[in-house]
Amino acid sequence: MSTEPAPTQALLHDTIPGADDLTSPQPDIRDLATTPAPSRSIVLVGLMGAGKTTIGRRLAAALGLPFHDADVEIEQAAGCSIADLFARYGEPAFRDGERRVIRRLLGGAPIVLATGGGAFMDDDTRALIRERATSIWLRCPLPLLLRRVSGRTHRPLLNAGDPRTVLDELMAKRSPVYAEADVTVDCADDGAEVTTRRVAAALAAHTPPRRLRVTLSHTAYDVVIGAGLIARAGALLAPVLPQKRVFIVTDATVARLHLPALLESLAATGIGAETVVVPPGEGSKRLAEFGRVTDAMLAAGVERRTAVIALGGGVVGDLAGYAAASVMRGLPFVQIPTTLLSQVDSSVGGKTGINTAYGKNLLGAFHQPRIVLADTGALATLPPRELSAGYAEIVKAGLIGDAALYRWCEQHGPAITGTAPGGADPDLQAEAVLRACAFKAAVVGDDEREEKPSDGRALLNLGHTFAHALEAECGYDGSLLHGEAVAIGLVLALRLSARLGFCDPGLAPRVAAHLESAGLPSSTGMLNRRFQAESLVAHMQRDKKMRDGRLAFVATRGIGAAFTDRAVPREAVMALLAEETGEVNFIGN
Amino acid sequence: MSTEPAPTQALLHDTIPGADDLTSPQPDIRDLATTPAPSRSIVLVGLMGAGKTTIGRRLAAALGLPFHDADVEIEQAAGCSIADLFARYGEPAFRDGERRVIRRLLGGAPIVLATGGGAFMDDDTRALIRERATSIWLRCPLPLLLRRVSGRTHRPLLNAGDPRTVLDELMAKRSPVYAEADVTVDCADDGAEVTTRRVAAALAAHTPPRRLRVTLSHTAYDVVIGAGLIARAGALLAPVLPQKRVFIVTDATVARLHLPALLESLAATGIGAETVVVPPGEGSKRLAEFGRVTDAMLAAGVERRTAVIALGGGVVGDLAGYAAASVMRGLPFVQIPTTLLSQVDSSVGGKTGINTAYGKNLLGAFHQPRIVLADTGALATLPPRELSAGYAEIVKAGLIGDAALYRWCEQHGPAITGTAPGGADPDLQAEAVLRACAFKAAVVGDDEREEKPSDGRALLNLGHTFAHALEAECGYDGSLLHGEAVAIGLVLALRLSARLGFCDPGLAPRVAAHLESAGLPSSTGMLNRRFQAESLVAHMQRDKKMRDGRLAFVATRGIGAAFTDRAVPREAVMALLAEETGEVNFIGN
Repeated sequence: MSTEPAPTQALLHDTIPGADDLTSPQPDIRDLATTPAPSRSIVLVGLMGAGKTTIGRRLAAALGLPFHDADVEIEQAAGCSIADLFARYGEPAFRDGERRVIRRLLGGAPIVLATGGGAFMDDDTRALIRERATSIWLRCPLPLLLRRVSGRTHRPLLNAGDPRTVLDELMAKRSPVYAEADVTVDCADDGAEVTTRRVAAALAAHTPPRRLRVTLSHTAYDVVIGAGLIARAGALLAPVLPQKRVFIVTDATVARLHLPALLESLAATGIGAETVVVPPGEGSKRLAEFGRVTDAMLAAGVERRTAVIALGGGVVGDLAGYAAASVMRGLPFVQIPTTLLSQVDSSVGGKTGINTAYGKNLLGAFHQPRIVLADTGALATLPPRELSAGYAEIVKAGLIGDAALYRWCEQHGPAITGTAPGGADPDLQAEAVLRACAFKAAVVGDDEREEKPSDGRALLNLGHTFAHALEAECGYDGSLLHGEAVAIGLVLALRLSARLGFCDPGLAPRVAAHLESAGLPSSTGMLNRRFQAESLVAHMQRDKKMRDGRLAFVATRGIGAAFTDRAVPREAVMALLAEETGEVNFIGN
Repeated sequence: MSTEPAPTQALLHDTIPGADDLTSPQPDIRDLATTPAPSRSIVLVGLMGAGKTTIGRRLAAALGLPFHDADVEIEQAAGCSIADLFARYGEPAFRDGERRVIRRLLGGAPIVLATGGGAFMDDDTRALIRERATSIWLRCPLPLLLRRVSGRTHRPLLNAGDPRTVLDELMAKRSPVYAEADVTVDCADDGAEVTTRRVAAALAAHTPPRRLRVTLSHTAYDVVIGAGLIARAGALLAPVLPQKRVFIVTDATVARLHLPALLESLAATGIGAETVVVPPGEGSKRLAEFGRVTDAMLAAGVERRTAVIALGGGVVGDLAGYAAASVMRGLPFVQIPTTLLSQVDSSVGGKTGINTAYGKNLLGAFHQPRIVLADTGALATLPPRELSAGYAEIVKAGLIGDAALYRWCEQHGPAITGTAPGGADPDLQAEAVLRACAFKAAVVGDDEREEKPSDGRALLNLGHTFAHALEAECGYDGSLLHGEAVAIGLVLALRLSARLGFCDPGLAPRVAAHLESAGLPSSTGMLNRRFQAESLVAHMQRDKKMRDGRLAFVATRGIGAAFTDRAVPREAVMALLAEETGEVNFIGN
């Protein structure tokens, strides 16, 4: 046994001081030596002198990948130096050639690639790197760069004037774009070995977020799911924003928790941001607040290409979305949902709106987002009750049409809501959001504007006829969360389905037990309030769920087999609710 | 020479007491004998006993067309009586056969066709008749019908009970559908000859409205143009409404002039209607009024398929359209524009919205109507100034991209605005609306959401940068109508185009002279107000028309050759406006 650690082993016993932009937990870097080589290429970006070639070569050796230097390859392809290329053909021609070389290099098996300082600045090259590789920005302080590049004359951009001025300007211009890299590593004058260790550790700690593509008839967008996305929002949004300018709508609670991180990440990528903060709670979903928010946007001088970001839960998303749909007849829109409920439900599908005296969500628009960033790290800041409430919609998705999801929920529910002995598991949470969003995206893609006469988007209302009646009865005073009402509503919908002969009577107790294990109520008996069957049915009638004495429900034939039934006899519903509320034999049942 | 008039001549010297639903002027019926046979078939509809066969046969003789009786043809085709057909196969099978026979009969050269009483009740048969023929409803009072059908047993529907009860119920059920016929003739017990005269006269007086199809990427709709359309609205809307229920938004002025006729026509076709009336004027285009209108809709219990009708000018159309777009995230929408400006401009293209403290139309939606009914009869109720103001947008359309339209305008302008010695010509007005809408539809079809970076929908702003500045300077106090500002703006845009070397300097005076002939101002000198070049340019800058010291304008290379120029030097605009406002040599020009 050697007493001197080998270089690759030395790498395994070090802290990662430069990886401060990573919010994911530090990896157990002892695994690195046995980690298989990454499945994607690694591209190093940064200013001249940042050490892309030096570090890249060492990193490649550590990871067992081939190393390439884009500038060298370009010179070989062109048969002359880059300085000559610049001088003879100008920068645009050089960037064209550079893009072609990088496309070729990233077209095959994974490599480590060092790029010229300007490569990542080119929109098409950057998109190419985003698509095919993991990018790492080697961020260096100016004095270090200056020392390294002094005296070198083969850098054409540096020969234009005083190196300090040129580099300073380049840094100001390029940093917001380099910040779009997947990983940022801060470099000091520590020597190549230490820096390489930092880079390798940061890379190992980097978990690319889950991505779900939502494809609708006239648009498509990604739902990006993972921890730390708010702190990475600038880099994630930059490729999809039509303008490097946004207007954020958030509420006071979320602003305190998440706005600073969002603003910092936007600023790092050069995205200008203004903000309006609304009071937390359903009360903000009204016309007066809509007027205040839209006025704030207009006072800020938003333009047609300024994107509106909703940072918060369903209330903020619905209000900001309707404002985005309306200002100048439609601004680009981004959802950054911070509650589990909004991550799995309201942020996907394009429904936006506010409440009126005549009911909820009666004014609004279908306005699809350009992108949804579901930061599952934000779930850690939620009260346990809200986490469980959001989970009810995940269970609902499984019950409607994804039996595998429901069974997966039964396995992992408590670890998603944090009611398990070990608390919440962030990775399972992210997986749950992905699965629920995937289910919702499929339903919405099939019936974007809820126009199908049966099934379609209406299926998403499983349990909701009961839930809305319970919420209305509670007066939306916060004593019963929407997701809690949905949990009870789901069980009632299953009991109704059994009563109507559609499904096994054993399904309702099974689902009730699961919901309880996830911290949810499964019957009105678990609430500190008495309900009356007659009042609940009256709410359903007001909700226009009744026609010719028959009520519209989503029923089910079993797990994942829901269907719309618009002709449920009022008597069946009354009998069920009389049983539920303890009004025994209310109508002779 | 015979002293007894021949039957067809007798027809020419009679009044038309039954044609009271026609708002177009009475025809000179002396022309009828020399009128060529109609180019479309004529289909008589109405209850059993209305005289469809008797009148139809005489009408065919008078018009020189073949006559067919659908019931006879059906019996021939089936080889048995209609009573037997009903008894053996039931009504649905009979209606299928009837539809096939009518399709065959209307598939060739024009005929006169008498239909069975139930034929027009069938949705598909009615659509077929609408497409291929002119339909005439012979409307008879119940006692007359009863007398005629008494004792006849070959009418299967009558054998089901007491004839009076059966007929009364049939009448109540069918009248709203018969009312969709193109022409209604009230019949009395006057004998076949008199009734035939009435029918022929009503037919001669019937001018089918002009129709323009607007085809967009995801929808298409008709703009129907003609006199008397409000009184025919029920019949025109019935085929396109998803539900026989509408909600009307109008203003107090228009309600007084046109609401009774609209309500009557809707009621005649069995379309339920509720109404909200807003104050006239631009002041209604604000969020508070939007809230009042949407609340009124919700209080009325509108459903997702209830159509919203905007009855009025641009203010009502914009406000009602945005409300329709927002309530329940989008209700079907119908435009019935009653001003020339809204008929040629705002009712086509789907732009809706309200004003804010930060500018006009800054909150809204793109919400395309299902149909536009431009009743040119309503133009007779407009103040002359408003008629001229609307006309400015027609001239604009020609100048932008339809040279033939502009030359046609020069020929007919005064007859459209009523400034000609003979006053306004309704037929030329309808033609002008058609041509302007056709032009706008083409532009909108090419760039529905104003997303093209150049030209496209932005071209519709020819003259509008100047116009908006003039209006802003006047404070929207009604002293300068939008169309008047546009007229001046058009001349300024042409002078600017000449100044920039794009077009002949003679164009501006030519257009100015034409606008003046149509009762419009052509320069600020014709207004009772002084303007300052500096203030006008300041408005343009606030309007976000300026970038890097250059202003965005629609310029032109000649008649019908407009283009967007986003880089007009501020100095050129200042110099022009200094000249216009009399601030001589303001910047050394």
